[in-house]
Amino acid sequence: MGGEVVLLDFWASPFGMRARIALAEKGVKYEYREENLANKGELLLKSNPVYKKIPVLIHDGKSLSESLIIVQYIDEVWKNPPLLPEDAYERAVARFWADFADKKLYDSGTKIWKSKGEAQASAVKEFIENLKILEGALGDEPFFGGEKLGFVDVMVVPFVCWFHAYEVHGGFSVAAECPKIDAWAKRCMERESVSKALQDPEKILEFVGFLKKKYGVE
Amino acid sequence: MGGEVVLLDFWASPFGMRARIALAEKGVKYEYREENLANKGELLLKSNPVYKKIPVLIHDGKSLSESLIIVQYIDEVWKNPPLLPEDAYERAVARFWADFADKKLYDSGTKIWKSKGEAQASAVKEFIENLKILEGALGDEPFFGGEKLGFVDVMVVPFVCWFHAYEVHGGFSVAAECPKIDAWAKRCMERESVSKALQDPEKILEFVGFLKKKYGVE
Repeated sequence: MGGEVVLLDFWASPFGMRARIALAEKGVKYEYREENLANKGELLLKSNPVYKKIPVLIHDGKSLSESLIIVQYIDEVWKNPPLLPEDAYERAVARFWADFADKKLYDSGTKIWKSKGEAQASAVKEFIENLKILEGALGDEPFFGGEKLGFVDVMVVPFVCWFHAYEVHGGFSVAAECPKIDAWAKRCMERESVSKALQDPEKILEFVGFLKKKYGVE
Repeated sequence: MGGEVVLLDFWASPFGMRARIALAEKGVKYEYREENLANKGELLLKSNPVYKKIPVLIHDGKSLSESLIIVQYIDEVWKNPPLLPEDAYERAVARFWADFADKKLYDSGTKIWKSKGEAQASAVKEFIENLKILEGALGDEPFFGGEKLGFVDVMVVPFVCWFHAYEVHGGFSVAAECPKIDAWAKRCMERESVSKALQDPEKILEFVGFLKKKYGVE
């Protein structure tokens, strides 16, 4: 599948990391363009007029946004190795967990560093509950996709490099609460596609500190 | 494609209507089971333990939830007529608009009847803006899917029978604000799959009156 591939992205974005992992898994060469989110570029505004958000994938001059949609597109255009399962029911189940991570994990994680006191305690509780639900979905398989990294893994694993910031601000430990998720995260990090896309947890912690200042949460 | 098909649903749910339209478009025979949302049945709680919400599709004993995922599953299992386009980019664009309707239309519509005064005025403004964005995506085509009813149409059209309630409570007219959406809605209603799934707007208005009382919005 030819055509120039450009990714408009921001280094710390777990949503951008999803696209980076999927492109790396498929061996797609692409141009990475870092966006300044405080001063968004013309191309970003033009390519995603509805949300004006990264990531945006531009393939052969045609642009796409929303990471869940971008990763499905990548999976449909560059077929090998497949990320979504072949069976329709298993595909639906994979889409369900990807959507769950989308709706629940980011929001409850963000609430941890954006709040204080009781609100923060309840955000931590919610985050751990959501992670335990995902742990239940993982079961005793090495990956959500079974024997190998699949769609749900790609959707969930970028949050792993944000765990440290959540843990420091929320005062809990993912490894202690969800040991299977912790083991799964380490397994994912053995893949170059993942370890190259995910950022240093200390840098993410520093970035969250910057966000806390920006939003006046001290 | 064989196997018993059961739909756990609630008559006024636009999300349930999506599944009903998709099943009718594909000519799938199924058993419709109305849920009492004030006293949810065992089967619903067991089939959708994460959200405990309708609609749930049970096919051959295996259950699925979330209307966007259900309709994609229906489209993959019963292939004719196809709802999503064949081309990967067009599929991604269809998924983008379906997701937009999911994230934006229901929430801004609900805000109209759940709020008063300035908050309501801003909800009306937001709803009309979202509808105008969708109108732009429709362009001059008869359907979002082009010449015939497709995935985005199935995702968006159930809200049409809620428009009357939004209009009455918000004091505006969809036909005046978005004439192309109004014409598109009438075109969709000519299809039996749509007209049979959508409910009487007067009954929805009455139901919204019941919801307003329930939530103490008077």
